[in-house]
Amino acid sequence: MNDDLIEKLIEQFRTLPGVGFKTAQRYAFSIIEGKKERAQIFAKTILEVKEKIGFCKICGNFTNQEICPICQKRNRRIVCVVKEPKDVLAMEKVKTYDGVYHVLFGTISPLENRGPNDIKIKELLKRVQDDNIEEVIMATNPDVEGDATALYIAKILKPLGVKVTRIAQGISIGSDLEFADEVTLAKALEARRDIN
Amino acid sequence: MNDDLIEKLIEQFRTLPGVGFKTAQRYAFSIIEGKKERAQIFAKTILEVKEKIGFCKICGNFTNQEICPICQKRNRRIVCVVKEPKDVLAMEKVKTYDGVYHVLFGTISPLENRGPNDIKIKELLKRVQDDNIEEVIMATNPDVEGDATALYIAKILKPLGVKVTRIAQGISIGSDLEFADEVTLAKALEARRDIN
Repeated sequence: MNDDLIEKLIEQFRTLPGVGFKTAQRYAFSIIEGKKERAQIFAKTILEVKEKIGFCKICGNFTNQEICPICQKRNRRIVCVVKEPKDVLAMEKVKTYDGVYHVLFGTISPLENRGPNDIKIKELLKRVQDDNIEEVIMATNPDVEGDATALYIAKILKPLGVKVTRIAQGISIGSDLEFADEVTLAKALEARRDIN
Repeated sequence: MNDDLIEKLIEQFRTLPGVGFKTAQRYAFSIIEGKKERAQIFAKTILEVKEKIGFCKICGNFTNQEICPICQKRNRRIVCVVKEPKDVLAMEKVKTYDGVYHVLFGTISPLENRGPNDIKIKELLKRVQDDNIEEVIMATNPDVEGDATALYIAKILKPLGVKVTRIAQGISIGSDLEFADEVTLAKALEARRDIN
């Protein structure tokens, strides 16, 4: 017996990850009860993001420019390889890191039928071949798939003479990079070692 | 070193109640990674809600019609008085209730400097005088302010000869109506009693 429109808005909020009915309802009422300008900015930002955000030509991360701000300004000879864009945000908490990134958009997972060709490994290979890269730091998650992907990439990059390292497993095993704290991430980066 | 646009979207999600940075980030990436159509529908629904949702002429609840679906179809001689629109949603879980509502948009709170004239009590009085109402059920929250508001309203309605009841305090004291389960709410409604 609700208004259809309010229910529609609740449904929209329910499409967000981890949002149940009660939470969606709270969000919806906060929009309904809030100022019109706020709702307009909210809606506009969602549209603008979808309109303008594409992929960085170099690292593959989301950006609204041809080349993302990180690739524009930092040392491109050191490349940190991560699974997802949000892992870039996690690594960026380590203020001392001055290199760039490579976003794989996934990890190798035989269980989920995802092989090396289904993630951005070819693109990484090309970067290493073309861009005079000194070191590739594997910062995939410290789980089975992340480790397997790191090993696979190390194996195919080794013949090219590039140094391949893995962030230290100071990050707790089985957890997700996204939720690690700065100190752990900084230590893990510091203690990185060759993959052999 | 994030893109400004992505940060802008994260900020927008942070304006939602109870949303911290990590959660806002998850929501933002779900929009960025999702389909364009989904983002468009999301944004459109937010705008549409702000454009069309107003207040029901009878009960004061949010609606996109002049008179809300509940007031249109149900027994208008029984009125359940609640603090907020979301409390209507909570009460609606009680499928056996066939009456209508009156939304106060607040409770009397001396501490927060909110008196009877700051909430929709005048409107309720007018409804009782004009609409031949049989019973007013006070379903404000079972806390100090909710109880005080219920007593105040009972006092001013009594001279009009209308029956005023209070939902039973089977609902746990100090909690919020929004979070009560259906069974508790149904029982509380069943055991309502006269305010004397």
